[in-house]
Amino acid sequence: MKENPQLNPIGVIHSPYNTIEECHPYSQSREQTFRLEVFPEFAPALQSVETCTHILVLYWMHHARRDLLTQGYRWDNKPHGTFALRSPHRPNPIALSTCELVLREGRFLTVQGLDCIEGTPLLDIKPCFATHDGSPDARVGWWEKRTGKCPQ
Amino acid sequence: MKENPQLNPIGVIHSPYNTIEECHPYSQSREQTFRLEVFPEFAPALQSVETCTHILVLYWMHHARRDLLTQGYRWDNKPHGTFALRSPHRPNPIALSTCELVLREGRFLTVQGLDCIEGTPLLDIKPCFATHDGSPDARVGWWEKRTGKCPQ
Repeated sequence: MKENPQLNPIGVIHSPYNTIEECHPYSQSREQTFRLEVFPEFAPALQSVETCTHILVLYWMHHARRDLLTQGYRWDNKPHGTFALRSPHRPNPIALSTCELVLREGRFLTVQGLDCIEGTPLLDIKPCFATHDGSPDARVGWWEKRTGKCPQ
Repeated sequence: MKENPQLNPIGVIHSPYNTIEECHPYSQSREQTFRLEVFPEFAPALQSVETCTHILVLYWMHHARRDLLTQGYRWDNKPHGTFALRSPHRPNPIALSTCELVLREGRFLTVQGLDCIEGTPLLDIKPCFATHDGSPDARVGWWEKRTGKCPQ
């Protein structure tokens, strides 16, 4: 790769949260709804999305730091590597959520299962396949052995 | 967002496939192994990754087109929107795979479940949580009703 690739947001996420403090990492309120607005020029790419029950949403954590290689949580300050964490602060702050698609209205999608603030840039939408995405056997060892209690 | 964000690859993927024709979309050979090389400056971010059984790997499809809003498969040429497909050709060609972590050796990770060519830029590694990533209930309607038969 000769030069670093540039991202081109395809839309914007409308959230009930206006500040980072209102978000709830690791305890996402699955009932809370968010609205994905796809910009008009990308709207044709939504064709058939309405046939999906779940979508993978990729978005850009535009307030995140990109220089943290290890991090601790305030409720459990043992440090772990950024690549073992779902923190928004990472070299390429691309967040990923598996969302339930509640409704498509034209170029707007109502979803559940997100966790970001109003105005977050939307990068990509992918169909979620039960057979390929995630794994019921997935275990995160350090998380299971953590000593601190995460906020509910 | 004032200007489009730039990505900064954290490493490179070593693959048994040297050409796109050798890759197998939608029929990923789960037994085939790939090697993720994390650049030395990002190696500290791997701390605790070895405690994960599965990781989410984000990578940049550097040969993909970014201008396709609808696409058909050659074996089923009904067009669908790019956001209803897992095609590498998309406005932001970020690919995502759930991988089994076979082995960590320093800044090298051996994984199964990828599908890309040698030299693909690596963007991010995230721990996979059984409770949050993917869904056993996910259905992709157009895929289930497709008339063509995908290659095995």
